[in-house]
Amino acid sequence: MPNDVVDIQAKFDLFSGHWLPKRIAQLNDYDVKLVKLQGEFVWHSHDDTDELFFVISGQLTIQLRDRDVHLGPGQLYVVPKGVEHCPRADEEVQALLMEPAGVVNTGDAGGELTAVVEDI
Amino acid sequence: MPNDVVDIQAKFDLFSGHWLPKRIAQLNDYDVKLVKLQGEFVWHSHDDTDELFFVISGQLTIQLRDRDVHLGPGQLYVVPKGVEHCPRADEEVQALLMEPAGVVNTGDAGGELTAVVEDI
Repeated sequence: MPNDVVDIQAKFDLFSGHWLPKRIAQLNDYDVKLVKLQGEFVWHSHDDTDELFFVISGQLTIQLRDRDVHLGPGQLYVVPKGVEHCPRADEEVQALLMEPAGVVNTGDAGGELTAVVEDI
Repeated sequence: MPNDVVDIQAKFDLFSGHWLPKRIAQLNDYDVKLVKLQGEFVWHSHDDTDELFFVISGQLTIQLRDRDVHLGPGQLYVVPKGVEHCPRADEEVQALLMEPAGVVNTGDAGGELTAVVEDI
């Protein structure tokens, strides 16, 4: 992975698929990823790690079992480890994610939305 | 630390000092911090950790011993562990930092710019 300046918007312009995180940088053993979200994901949790969502554009709802968390551009939220969540975006959202390398996007749920993270 | 939505700009509006990182979120044992930068910092390195700079507003130069890294809004750079660096901003920069909890801002250099990180 090249160690150089990363322009977030230039990276978003390189891909179009939804729910397919792309790694843009590494910080020790953590990955910094970009993802485009549209529609509803699957309910899942990550038993071993928190997960940071930072919205760059669009309106993201992170559904929790007891409430909805609403995020707009410039807002971030950390889903605590073990907490079930299901992201939903009525229109396309661009978001930055941070979590330890190797975290699977669908967590404990698995299924067809499980993605292999590629560098971009 | 409250586990809720963090609005980056609202947090920046809460403080004015330069080179004084404020913690806005925790991700496992990592801190997410905001900092305002103006002028020149001190040359230093962090022997045990990489350090992520994500510029929100302004133009930041991260001086390395062999080159300068220039960052504008929406651009990020990871300073590798052990690499000497010295941030410089001719006009005020707002930046988001990520690194393990407990990292001292002045690294191996110490001195009067060493800051205690407060929650905000």
